[in-house]
Amino acid sequence: MYYIGIDLGGTGIKAGLVDENGKILRKATCPTLVERGPRPIVDDMAALALRVAKEENVSMDDVKAIGIGLPGIQDPRTGHVPFCTNLYWHEVPVIEWMRETVDKPIFIGNDATVAGLAESVAGVSAGVKNSVFITLGTGVGGGIVLDGKVYSGTHGVGSELGHMITVVDGEMCSCGNRGCWERYASATALIRMGRQAVKEHPESMIMTLAGGEEEKIEAKTVIDAAKAGDETAKKVFDLYVYHLCAGLVGIINFIDPEVIVLGGGVSHAGQFLLDAVRAKLPSMVFYKTMPYARVELATLGNDAGIIGAAMLGK
Amino acid sequence: MYYIGIDLGGTGIKAGLVDENGKILRKATCPTLVERGPRPIVDDMAALALRVAKEENVSMDDVKAIGIGLPGIQDPRTGHVPFCTNLYWHEVPVIEWMRETVDKPIFIGNDATVAGLAESVAGVSAGVKNSVFITLGTGVGGGIVLDGKVYSGTHGVGSELGHMITVVDGEMCSCGNRGCWERYASATALIRMGRQAVKEHPESMIMTLAGGEEEKIEAKTVIDAAKAGDETAKKVFDLYVYHLCAGLVGIINFIDPEVIVLGGGVSHAGQFLLDAVRAKLPSMVFYKTMPYARVELATLGNDAGIIGAAMLGK
Repeated sequence: MYYIGIDLGGTGIKAGLVDENGKILRKATCPTLVERGPRPIVDDMAALALRVAKEENVSMDDVKAIGIGLPGIQDPRTGHVPFCTNLYWHEVPVIEWMRETVDKPIFIGNDATVAGLAESVAGVSAGVKNSVFITLGTGVGGGIVLDGKVYSGTHGVGSELGHMITVVDGEMCSCGNRGCWERYASATALIRMGRQAVKEHPESMIMTLAGGEEEKIEAKTVIDAAKAGDETAKKVFDLYVYHLCAGLVGIINFIDPEVIVLGGGVSHAGQFLLDAVRAKLPSMVFYKTMPYARVELATLGNDAGIIGAAMLGK
Repeated sequence: MYYIGIDLGGTGIKAGLVDENGKILRKATCPTLVERGPRPIVDDMAALALRVAKEENVSMDDVKAIGIGLPGIQDPRTGHVPFCTNLYWHEVPVIEWMRETVDKPIFIGNDATVAGLAESVAGVSAGVKNSVFITLGTGVGGGIVLDGKVYSGTHGVGSELGHMITVVDGEMCSCGNRGCWERYASATALIRMGRQAVKEHPESMIMTLAGGEEEKIEAKTVIDAAKAGDETAKKVFDLYVYHLCAGLVGIINFIDPEVIVLGGGVSHAGQFLLDAVRAKLPSMVFYKTMPYARVELATLGNDAGIIGAAMLGK
């Protein structure tokens, strides 16, 4: 049996024909073009799904289901997608529209959730029953797998891990609260901290690597300078890791997963990030003599969205 | 079939014979006397278990299992209790010792966890699949029920909800971190906030109700003054509710339960607390137009420990 996974993002739509082990056999992509509205985007998703099967000479009869990962959620009451970050969608009947073209079971998951599912099927947390996946990107997203299955909560509004409050009265968040974890643990936060730091320390290597232009400082700039031993960058990175761990400790003390997987832009810091997090956590977890979650880096990269979406139907 | 539940606390040991619907048929208690060490305490627990069955003329053959709720956790690797808050226990083989006297399956759960289980069997969250129970007492404890079953995590170290960090770099916590939720949402926190407030506002009714003595201010003092309309007390209570909701929002955005149950000392504020929390939450949850967890008050009171412990064996 085969599965089709669709990864819908603000820039591109990616579809893949996937086998039951989570291996991608064929991929196809097209631009999202957000401004054209939801209907043609959903039509393109359906067309891409048919295309990857056809190009691989696989009959749709041998495709068990289609899964879609998107930057939003599904309302379990209606089956609709009530909103999608960056896509400006409102109550879009994705499944109904898709099924006008494709007569297959269709499943929808949040993009971070399906990336977590992908890692737990074919990535670093393969075979692990309870895992939490965290994307450290523009925001902080979360995907929860409990007992081997995606956990999205009772009303489908769970796993928004970036919106745990870790700094009451802290930075303003787009969700209306102050001090959400993603304001301190996202790539955006690391950039903000880096830009703040060079105001006091313009001699920092962060500034050199950014070509002397503060607005060119990215997460990678701070990380590269910290790796090279720059004192200001090391302090910024340590502060970032402290805030990252403040949320990780909440996850560990709350749901006690077997593995926490770090993905998204900041995770490209690789072993440097992993070593820092693993050094910081032991003093912060509640039960200091008991085993707790291993922290690992995501391994599937950009394919996680397709693989995880496909696995929704498994 | 019958079940026996044992509620071990720092002051007393309570045991109860419980039917399969969570109804207590017979109770017995004795003092804990922490200073005598774990062995005689465990022996008393076994003796109380036998006593409640005998007094109700129920043969131990008709008792399916014994459950114990205690202020600690069980190490799933050893079956031992590695530590118990306030009891000074270290690696106590509770089950082995109990079974020298009672040849029954024995289960151990954290006290907040079993209280949550009790509410989900015979209390306010009866029949609810996914619920989170929170005790607002000296600290903040948590009990998670997922799919009708107690969830304690992969390594048994989960549901320590009081130790999610909500105020990075905030008040020092006994766990070694700063800014744990329980430093801001426990009865202890409400007392601290009340005592701080009267330093600036000695004319507050908080002070009158405390007989003019700052150290006599309790959580109830602040709540009673707030209920009576005292401005200082209302401000303190609002601040407390804000901090309480900061953690509740984390729970909702993370695990999205169907019901959140508030128990413990502060929950005796009753409808006054419930109204305040329900008024504050809607603007703080992430998905503002989607349904989210109902917040309710615990209904089983002091019996929750016995009932929940008994239900561990069901």
